Amino acid sequence: MKQFMCLDVGGTKIRGALFGDENIEPIRQQKIPTQNQGQKVEDRICGLIREIWPVNSNVDAIAIAAPGFVDSDKGVVIRAVNIPGWEFLPLQKILQDKFNTPVIIGNDARLAALGEWKYGAAIGHHDVIYLTISTGIGGGVIIKDRVLMGSRGMATELGHITILPDGPLCSCGQKGHLEAISSGPAIAQFVQEEIKNGKKSSVSALKNFSSKEIAQAAFEGDELCQLAYKRAGSFLGMALVNLLHTFNPTCVVLGGGVSFTGDLLLEPMQKEIEKSILSKEYLGNLTFSTAKLGENAGLIGGLVLITVNNL
Amino acid sequence: MKQFMCLDVGGTKIRGALFGDENIEPIRQQKIPTQNQGQKVEDRICGLIREIWPVNSNVDAIAIAAPGFVDSDKGVVIRAVNIPGWEFLPLQKILQDKFNTPVIIGNDARLAALGEWKYGAAIGHHDVIYLTISTGIGGGVIIKDRVLMGSRGMATELGHITILPDGPLCSCGQKGHLEAISSGPAIAQFVQEEIKNGKKSSVSALKNFSSKEIAQAAFEGDELCQLAYKRAGSFLGMALVNLLHTFNPTCVVLGGGVSFTGDLLLEPMQKEIEKSILSKEYLGNLTFSTAKLGENAGLIGGLVLITVNNL
Repeated sequence: MKQFMCLDVGGTKIRGALFGDENIEPIRQQKIPTQNQGQKVEDRICGLIREIWPVNSNVDAIAIAAPGFVDSDKGVVIRAVNIPGWEFLPLQKILQDKFNTPVIIGNDARLAALGEWKYGAAIGHHDVIYLTISTGIGGGVIIKDRVLMGSRGMATELGHITILPDGPLCSCGQKGHLEAISSGPAIAQFVQEEIKNGKKSSVSALKNFSSKEIAQAAFEGDELCQLAYKRAGSFLGMALVNLLHTFNPTCVVLGGGVSFTGDLLLEPMQKEIEKSILSKEYLGNLTFSTAKLGENAGLIGGLVLITVNNL
Repeated sequence: MKQFMCLDVGGTKIRGALFGDENIEPIRQQKIPTQNQGQKVEDRICGLIREIWPVNSNVDAIAIAAPGFVDSDKGVVIRAVNIPGWEFLPLQKILQDKFNTPVIIGNDARLAALGEWKYGAAIGHHDVIYLTISTGIGGGVIIKDRVLMGSRGMATELGHITILPDGPLCSCGQKGHLEAISSGPAIAQFVQEEIKNGKKSSVSALKNFSSKEIAQAAFEGDELCQLAYKRAGSFLGMALVNLLHTFNPTCVVLGGGVSFTGDLLLEPMQKEIEKSILSKEYLGNLTFSTAKLGENAGLIGGLVLITVNNL
């Protein structure tokens, strides 16, 4: 039996799992905090790999899901916004040298897309768009059963698509990206600014509030909070229309915490899509679905990436 | 020797050519006006096919490049803005029944992309974005040597991507699409409206002016005309940045009359790209090129489509 190891490196946690062949139930799994004072994140990754390494047997390949811009061809993390110091980090080489087994790295959202396509919400579809909407917005696209990587593995940065020129500032430093309008922090930012501008909202009584508290207040009838989700959902719909015109898929999968607020976000999204689509033909064979693999999507996507590449 | 027939159906002309095997020099070619009173366009297509049909031999396949939304899988032209009456036209079936040979239809810009990739400006590249900027804006994308068609062959409608929410009206009826800002008629529309708003321009002395006269006036120093191209070029750059973040290609090919105005459009485009790109890594291996196949791009693309599909 072949054994594969997959890791998903997030801003706060690193999750690791050992898989046997193509079975998506891990033989063993563990998670640790990403940061620990005085330690490099890449050293913590190595530590976690050692901890779940099988006794008396080998690992046939390692896949790493990493946040931010990942050059899969060169095996380099170009920039990871949530992990300070990760700039042009040759993660593939570091791990290959240490563990003497093939290593493959990929953007976490692209790997999650692969996972949802093979084992989750998009089983049986050949052309899929996956968007994860949480602290950031990431994306992955499957075209005729292959994940779109781009010439350097930097394709489908779908959170960083300009949807409102000169709009709000994005985490990447540019303006008006989808992530700067429809992500969790962007929703909170919008409400904060409207409150500063004199708008009333029940959340203004809270010391801190995030998109979660805003969702709760919106469910309870708070108009500003409802507007915040309506705005985020409409722009999300506009971005999706652009993606439907670009990819003409049969399945759209939405993952990430913000998408689980349901109709609050999805109703204005659907309205915008119906209003702005070029032709109903784009919608005739299209399914919308929420992600099914939960927090394991990146790990399972890593497993798919390994088997697709025959490592 | 196999023989293939390719047609490119435009708003004003239908071009037809007979090719031998994979030789891009046509054995025979001809063009006729698209419209003739009292005649259906599809009947004119049949007439042209008959005229260039080889004597005493067969045609192994026919490819048709058609404008507008084309469902290549079903062989149906869903809508062609420039050809009144073409709505849900089963062009593939009509021609197959008549000529008893395999027929394949595709959007003209996507076929031009295929042509430029195999025989034109993008030879040797595996990941290519092609944009044609003239009366409309069309697009085609090559990913790992395959043209992106989408689930129903309706992908890469890249002119109909919202780039300025609530912006100018597009030919398709939606607002703020790239085509409504950076196409030839959109550039002329912008100048007309600015003149109406009291701006001065040398072209206001002309009875009619198009993007061509505006380009000429811009070269001669007319400020409003320069601004019109700067605006079109900047938004084109913004759209291209979105496409680079989406596809991460190694080659961008620009075709169509408007792109041949050169620096007037391309300088503001380049500036916007350099300003708005997420990481220089997207530009490191990227080549910009103007289209090389001229008005034969669609025909040659049809030939490529036939050979790719082994018809």
